[in-house]
Amino acid sequence: MAFDDFYSVIPAGGIGSRLWPLSRADAPKFLHDLTGSGQTLLRDTWDRLVPLSGADRIMVVTGRAHRAAVEEQLPELADPNVVLESEPKDSSAAIGLAAAILLKREPDVIVGSFAADHVIRDIRGFRRAVGEGIAAARAGYIATIGITPTEPAIGFGYIHCGGPLSIEGAPNAVGVESFVEKPDLATAERYLADGVHLWNGGMFIARADVLLAQLGQSQPELLEGLSELAEAWDTSRRGAVVDRVWPRLTKIAIDYSVAEPAAAAGRLVVIPGDFDWDDVGDFASIAKLHSGGRKSDLAILGENARVLADASTGVVISQSGRLISLIGVTDIVVVDTPDALLVTTTANAQRVKAVVDALKLSGRNDVL
Amino acid sequence: MAFDDFYSVIPAGGIGSRLWPLSRADAPKFLHDLTGSGQTLLRDTWDRLVPLSGADRIMVVTGRAHRAAVEEQLPELADPNVVLESEPKDSSAAIGLAAAILLKREPDVIVGSFAADHVIRDIRGFRRAVGEGIAAARAGYIATIGITPTEPAIGFGYIHCGGPLSIEGAPNAVGVESFVEKPDLATAERYLADGVHLWNGGMFIARADVLLAQLGQSQPELLEGLSELAEAWDTSRRGAVVDRVWPRLTKIAIDYSVAEPAAAAGRLVVIPGDFDWDDVGDFASIAKLHSGGRKSDLAILGENARVLADASTGVVISQSGRLISLIGVTDIVVVDTPDALLVTTTANAQRVKAVVDALKLSGRNDVL
Repeated sequence: MAFDDFYSVIPAGGIGSRLWPLSRADAPKFLHDLTGSGQTLLRDTWDRLVPLSGADRIMVVTGRAHRAAVEEQLPELADPNVVLESEPKDSSAAIGLAAAILLKREPDVIVGSFAADHVIRDIRGFRRAVGEGIAAARAGYIATIGITPTEPAIGFGYIHCGGPLSIEGAPNAVGVESFVEKPDLATAERYLADGVHLWNGGMFIARADVLLAQLGQSQPELLEGLSELAEAWDTSRRGAVVDRVWPRLTKIAIDYSVAEPAAAAGRLVVIPGDFDWDDVGDFASIAKLHSGGRKSDLAILGENARVLADASTGVVISQSGRLISLIGVTDIVVVDTPDALLVTTTANAQRVKAVVDALKLSGRNDVL
Repeated sequence: MAFDDFYSVIPAGGIGSRLWPLSRADAPKFLHDLTGSGQTLLRDTWDRLVPLSGADRIMVVTGRAHRAAVEEQLPELADPNVVLESEPKDSSAAIGLAAAILLKREPDVIVGSFAADHVIRDIRGFRRAVGEGIAAARAGYIATIGITPTEPAIGFGYIHCGGPLSIEGAPNAVGVESFVEKPDLATAERYLADGVHLWNGGMFIARADVLLAQLGQSQPELLEGLSELAEAWDTSRRGAVVDRVWPRLTKIAIDYSVAEPAAAAGRLVVIPGDFDWDDVGDFASIAKLHSGGRKSDLAILGENARVLADASTGVVISQSGRLISLIGVTDIVVVDTPDALLVTTTANAQRVKAVVDALKLSGRNDVL
């Protein structure tokens, strides 16, 4: 039941600074179980993609430091499907290199890129949307998936949808007016009501050649570097070329190098996805994920969590095995790890990154 | 400059449940440095009493389990001045036994009882009040020290003062109308304004024979047991008599067995004390102690505390050496120990005891 011409790409990068001290340089977000599923977000992502492309057609792009952890999570991951970054170069380089390597191996391949650390539970709805995205890709479009908002979220980017299109196999595809950065609450409430704004889920599906051509229009030097890397990738020259080319690649998010220019040129379509989706960007999001949206709950994560709570709500993440006692603290966030403790509130969840920045500045890398 | 006829008694009992998980069965409140003085409350108490009675005239009543820790804190403590309880029997038994032992050794002795875990910084003011108390005791009264309230505290008991008395050497001594339990806020505000209510500092000064006679009127059986113990104390029969008599002693606070009946009989006087005083009963009290009364501060206790705080107030007590990060939490209480973590607010500080009770009920004595 997989799509024969389809290849999944999982960029597994990014630490998830707003989830410190849970997420660390050596234990990034995608290596954690944040849903209570019993497995990591990376493994959840893999399992979601296997039915779409088959396990032998999923490529993972990750940092060298995470190779062992990724392979432990994904024992089925074949060697040719592992792309290691010597240093982070943002999503255009990561996804672009995967597309370039796959294009060389398989000229008509359609690639779909799916972050390693997002949460989607409705597999059926996800599959339907990706299926439409693949159909749109076959028709020469770059497709993205937009999530129907369920609340006025201010932590996500939005896609302003255009009119309907007539693409075979993609009955729900619509055009894209524009991408919108994270809005304020009043704007987010308007978006929720107007029915033409979707959350930007950061998923892209396109023929590899179409994706790269679009990238080349805005970033010709980056494309040149990626093509050089892809040319050498499956040869003995790979190491030398990586050492020479990779460090000089432009760091730019694929949203800016591909999605926005493609939208402006009428080559981007959005497939509305009615499935649940969350990028689990901060602890407020984790609290919400576990409370089913109710504010009166205390979510408890951690294998051997020992929590004694009285009149308290929010989220506790326990990694230390210690007894954690909460009394009368509401919307609290407590993250208890063996060497660092965070206490904040869900309303302050976005500010966690500032702590990480402060720790970096003060040289306390032992806890980062 | 010590008072020759005076003997200090330090009842060092009580865990301080509202200071869990800092205070534990094996590390009770009096063995902690809660003031930042660099030494334990017990040692602070000892140092405060040495100028009044001399180091060789301070008796410590404590649990058998704390003997080693107490002796480590107080290397000057002489063996005849150590009274060990085989099990806690409340303050009437503890102070009463000390008084009975001392009475046997020295018929005219005046005893003063001072909790091991209270904070007083104004040594001069303390000495002045105790001096008046000793003068009142010489005149046959039981004296207590009442602290002039500085705020409408609801965590302390109060003494309702009566009219002035004419006692030689105790010019400020007044009578006692009644003892008042912890009031509500409105009542506490009234007490603060009326000028005739003082905080009950729990200090008692009296001739040992007067104190015991008063105890015997309300608790004749308890006095009988204590006298039997005292009779045998400095003999080879001590162990056998303790084993037989101690377990059967009535548990009752000295406030009920001595202070209230003495007040009713006109035998109690109160010496107003203008010095600072705190029983450091809960974490709110610790926060206050360290902030100088200001609410905008974050107090940090712990030898090697590593705290990174942003827009946060309250108190952090660090015993684990871990990095503690606080973001946007106000009036917070974080107590971080190697095996247990408490997160609450100063407003909930009194509820900590309920957690300890819950832990006891659930059999989790490993963290108590």
